[in-house]
Amino acid sequence: MEKLYYPQSIVIIGLSSKDNNIPRLILENLLRWGFMGRIMGVNPSGKDRHVNGIKMYKTVSDLPIVPDLAVALIPAKYIPAVIDECGEKGIRRMAIPSGGFNEFGSDGVKLADLAVEKARAWGIKFVGPNGVTIANTANGLCLPFVPSFRPMKGSLSIITQSGGVGLMLWNYMSDEDIGLAKFASIGNKLDLDEVDFLEYFGRDPETQIICLYLESISRGSDFLQAARAIDKPIIVLKANTTSAGRRAAMSHTAALSNDDRVLDEALRDAGVIRIHNFSDFISVAKVFKLPPMRGNNIMVMSPAGGLTVMMADLCEKHGFDFADPGEQFFNSLKEYGNAGVINFSNPLDMGDIYNPRMYAEIFYSVLHNDNVDGAVYVSQWPQMPRGDDVFTRMFKTDLSNETIGSIQSSGKPLCVTLFGPAKTTSRIKQNISLPIFNNPEEMIAALKIQMEFYRNRDRKNQNHLMPEGFDAKAIADWISSRSGDIGEDALDAIRLSGIPVPVSSVARDQFEAQRLAVETGFPVVMKVISPDALHKSEAGGVITGILNPDDAAESFAKIQAGLRAYNADAVFEGVRVMKEIKPGLDMFVGGVRDGSFGPVVFFGLGGIYIELFDDTACVLCPVSHEMIREKIMKLKSWKLLKGMRGAAASDVESFIDAVVNVSWIMAECAGVKELDINPLRVLADGEGCVALDARMRLEH
Amino acid sequence: MEKLYYPQSIVIIGLSSKDNNIPRLILENLLRWGFMGRIMGVNPSGKDRHVNGIKMYKTVSDLPIVPDLAVALIPAKYIPAVIDECGEKGIRRMAIPSGGFNEFGSDGVKLADLAVEKARAWGIKFVGPNGVTIANTANGLCLPFVPSFRPMKGSLSIITQSGGVGLMLWNYMSDEDIGLAKFASIGNKLDLDEVDFLEYFGRDPETQIICLYLESISRGSDFLQAARAIDKPIIVLKANTTSAGRRAAMSHTAALSNDDRVLDEALRDAGVIRIHNFSDFISVAKVFKLPPMRGNNIMVMSPAGGLTVMMADLCEKHGFDFADPGEQFFNSLKEYGNAGVINFSNPLDMGDIYNPRMYAEIFYSVLHNDNVDGAVYVSQWPQMPRGDDVFTRMFKTDLSNETIGSIQSSGKPLCVTLFGPAKTTSRIKQNISLPIFNNPEEMIAALKIQMEFYRNRDRKNQNHLMPEGFDAKAIADWISSRSGDIGEDALDAIRLSGIPVPVSSVARDQFEAQRLAVETGFPVVMKVISPDALHKSEAGGVITGILNPDDAAESFAKIQAGLRAYNADAVFEGVRVMKEIKPGLDMFVGGVRDGSFGPVVFFGLGGIYIELFDDTACVLCPVSHEMIREKIMKLKSWKLLKGMRGAAASDVESFIDAVVNVSWIMAECAGVKELDINPLRVLADGEGCVALDARMRLEH
Repeated sequence: MEKLYYPQSIVIIGLSSKDNNIPRLILENLLRWGFMGRIMGVNPSGKDRHVNGIKMYKTVSDLPIVPDLAVALIPAKYIPAVIDECGEKGIRRMAIPSGGFNEFGSDGVKLADLAVEKARAWGIKFVGPNGVTIANTANGLCLPFVPSFRPMKGSLSIITQSGGVGLMLWNYMSDEDIGLAKFASIGNKLDLDEVDFLEYFGRDPETQIICLYLESISRGSDFLQAARAIDKPIIVLKANTTSAGRRAAMSHTAALSNDDRVLDEALRDAGVIRIHNFSDFISVAKVFKLPPMRGNNIMVMSPAGGLTVMMADLCEKHGFDFADPGEQFFNSLKEYGNAGVINFSNPLDMGDIYNPRMYAEIFYSVLHNDNVDGAVYVSQWPQMPRGDDVFTRMFKTDLSNETIGSIQSSGKPLCVTLFGPAKTTSRIKQNISLPIFNNPEEMIAALKIQMEFYRNRDRKNQNHLMPEGFDAKAIADWISSRSGDIGEDALDAIRLSGIPVPVSSVARDQFEAQRLAVETGFPVVMKVISPDALHKSEAGGVITGILNPDDAAESFAKIQAGLRAYNADAVFEGVRVMKEIKPGLDMFVGGVRDGSFGPVVFFGLGGIYIELFDDTACVLCPVSHEMIREKIMKLKSWKLLKGMRGAAASDVESFIDAVVNVSWIMAECAGVKELDINPLRVLADGEGCVALDARMRLEH
Repeated sequence: MEKLYYPQSIVIIGLSSKDNNIPRLILENLLRWGFMGRIMGVNPSGKDRHVNGIKMYKTVSDLPIVPDLAVALIPAKYIPAVIDECGEKGIRRMAIPSGGFNEFGSDGVKLADLAVEKARAWGIKFVGPNGVTIANTANGLCLPFVPSFRPMKGSLSIITQSGGVGLMLWNYMSDEDIGLAKFASIGNKLDLDEVDFLEYFGRDPETQIICLYLESISRGSDFLQAARAIDKPIIVLKANTTSAGRRAAMSHTAALSNDDRVLDEALRDAGVIRIHNFSDFISVAKVFKLPPMRGNNIMVMSPAGGLTVMMADLCEKHGFDFADPGEQFFNSLKEYGNAGVINFSNPLDMGDIYNPRMYAEIFYSVLHNDNVDGAVYVSQWPQMPRGDDVFTRMFKTDLSNETIGSIQSSGKPLCVTLFGPAKTTSRIKQNISLPIFNNPEEMIAALKIQMEFYRNRDRKNQNHLMPEGFDAKAIADWISSRSGDIGEDALDAIRLSGIPVPVSSVARDQFEAQRLAVETGFPVVMKVISPDALHKSEAGGVITGILNPDDAAESFAKIQAGLRAYNADAVFEGVRVMKEIKPGLDMFVGGVRDGSFGPVVFFGLGGIYIELFDDTACVLCPVSHEMIREKIMKLKSWKLLKGMRGAAASDVESFIDAVVNVSWIMAECAGVKELDINPLRVLADGEGCVALDARMRLEH
């Protein structure tokens, strides 16, 4: 990978001096960016001896040296042959921007397969096809074929599945004073893919932030593993999210697990920042230029009262707390006031502080206050008539001097939004080292992201312990001896995982029924066992609320008689005696195996409400108790679990245990494709939970 | 109002030539903007004979004429006296920017009251205090005291409760090529408020779009009435939404109706566009420069494949349908293609169409296609090296010529987002008449808003008919004879509104019980009537599932005996015989009287799920069946109502009737402060609904 980004020599295949020769645009970019390696051109049909001073050869085999990198921008149908030529010459790295492969019909798919096969045979690694390939500001390597100035050098690197979106981002960045490190447009990613580039950028010292635009993630688990190993902020915009078809599914869980929800959870789990708007690449990159926000207490400042109100709404919506810098702080502000007509509080309306010199002092006091974890400031820099009035002085506050000192010495972030004419704010952005946000909404959202990134970073690589009572061997045996769709019997496997299921036993006669009922403990439920009573209730085969031994004996007789009355020929195999389960809260837990990210556990409110309100959460397997607890507390049914309207609290810990145990079934047993416990009855606090019904799909 | 915005003469009170004299900044703005009316200055303590060529007077009474408008920017404590002076002189319009009134402590409140009292006594209308007052680009009137260039003249007018936010908007607008008509910063709105300005801007021919930034709406119903009468787009950003305290409430309904939800519905009802981000003022204003989108079928175009994917996600999220322009259209595109490596569909990847001349032709074909209601195009205008290559030609497509012709001749909108350096896009915005959006997210959201605005405009002023069976007179009598909190008895009033309640009658002996049970129709429920059995069940006083006359007689005896066993001294007044209500879906309907917007009806899934999932909708009263139906279909419990998982459909129409009838109780009976029907049991389709329990709070 290092040689791909730092080649000493490059050959451009397809280069010519003709009008509209696209490879020539690549050459011009390399020259414009000051790439210092050796460049050669190859074109079998061209008559040029030189193009832009670069020497041309007829074939790859004619080249005087083996170049580190070959760029082949030629029609797709010639690519396999060129790979052979390159391989024969000894070239081991290629960039292939050409379109017309697997994205374009069945002929294209064949070409793609052939290209991959040939590259593998020669040991060639390549980026593409159907993308603008790579660029590196460190050495002036620019292979994208769109004429481009060399962007500002910086620490943000881009991996993109769309060349257009990637180039748009880099164009947009320089205007926002964010510099580029490395660029990879992976196109159809037939060979090198987002995981390869992510791993490389993760260890690349020039890269501090990694932005990815993706339309699909092929190697999900590898992607997560790579992301977990990287401490730098990784920002992902995943398009192609809405029309994802859902596969026909037996269980609720499978229906719930549309790709996007699992993706959301998978990225969160790996500490990746997921954004949904293109412009958030910029706002999030900006916020990481600032020191970390280590706590939730924010101070809001603006010279416009209305802005402080809007900002207060935004901060509350994002869950920030308003810092209290203390009475002393507010008293100290009085000396700065002008007309004395504004009360000071947080949010801080600075409209009465006309002396811009005071701003830096206030920023210093705010950021160095122990009760403040971070601050935001919103103002405008309007186009104004020349003047020396208070407003001109107020609006044209120079944030670049003392302010930056206040920030850096405090180790806390101060985020600034400046409204003003585009050309003015653009100039300001270029000229001060403080990032300037474009609007309060993106600023507050980005600050929240930054805070959570640092908060979550430390727990990315937790080790999970298998829960006690989880009989891995027994479950594995149970599963390996079965396959296909399994109904209520799945409760056997559930029990082996340590989740309680209803105790039951089979009585053959009245006396046994009495004895088993006593052993089980009253109240009990009895159910007929007969291959001829598919619907037990219709055959009078279910009696609930059996309270004593006499009742038990009588019920056995009733069930036996009922079966005879229902069908005189029915085979009576006995009666199942079960503990009657107390009322409780019916929740659900399920597992599913995502095609990309592996096993996932879903949980939430059970019954028809799964479908109706989708009040469920999901986590990759296996999972810690802490994470489940955190997720459960965010469910709407959390209120129910902890007991609402005077109702007793449910046994939340037993529910958490059950979710963890299901996550271990999913993690340990690859044969389990889907698993549903619905309902899982959660009893009153201290009384545990019981899986009342379950389904499972096994594939080996 | 007309004279406020078009005064022939103005006096500025407090003007002087001193450094930092703020009134002087107002004068300079008037001169800078080319205001042509007569301007005078008043300052009792100043020694100036002229300021900037304007003649100064010692007192208002010295003025040679009665000016149309007096601007008084002096400390708050002097304002009441100055109002007197102006009144005495015959001045009837004032602009008062000064702060220090009711926003600033109890002394300020007194000053505010005094100012209002004096102004009323003199018949003076004023704008302010504590705002930057008014401006008018038509005549160069600029009273805001912040030094300001005259903005581009246009058709957007602003009403703002924050001077800072208002000025920020106007500064921002010119940069986005949106012109200003009139401006009103209403500050504490002690006299003229948002409703006065809204009404005026509604009939002002210079104004085509009205933007309001508000922190409170004092006269809610007047505001809605004014808005309903206006056909122009009205855009509201309401801040101060999150920390609104909820008042202690007896009913669910009152707890649900936090101001913001009611506000949302009230604004929707009046056809007002509500936005939540400041920058949406701009994006929405832009979209109304385009022809209306009359249907839901959108065409998405971009030269970057990745952008079309992102756009497709956005369109789907906003509920647009992808237009199908037909095979003929797609075939016609083939002649424009270059490498022939891109399949044409909607979204349309134009990355292979290198000839910019073709763009206008494609835009024309798209917009004039009968299956297309509107289109969006996203591209970039990057900073590029000078060149004549295909990319330069593609990106630098001049949208200003044929494109605009295509749009205008089609009567359909084409929305464009261009990414590029701020200074470039800013220049493009100024130079072409097509609005350019800043990002796809705001563009798609704005287009959706525009489409819905035109769709909803025609139904703003619906007349609602009182439902049949609604006994207005009887309800009014019932309500006027009661007050305070009313429990189950509220069902009587509910019945009078035409909503079914359980039929019940009182039996005094066994035979009557038998007879009444037969009349009621089995199954019936019986309940003891006794002042001594507060908890009927504990006294054995409730028997359900009574299926025949014998059962009825027996149950009567059981209840009587049960009461005696419970309390030998209890007074037995008989037994209530009620029809047992079939199982059904328990929904809820409630009404509440909003302090600002009047009566509102809430409805949704009943039981504990109100609190848990808040799956409810609200509408202002009274309301049409159509609107309730539309809202019900957006509830999550809609799936339940129409029957999910094989369950039968519920009687949705009877539920709608019940909501409409409650809305009429709320609309007709001002004494009803809160009303709750919970549960309202909705039976199977065709079987109606029954109000099982109700509560009401009456205040007269």
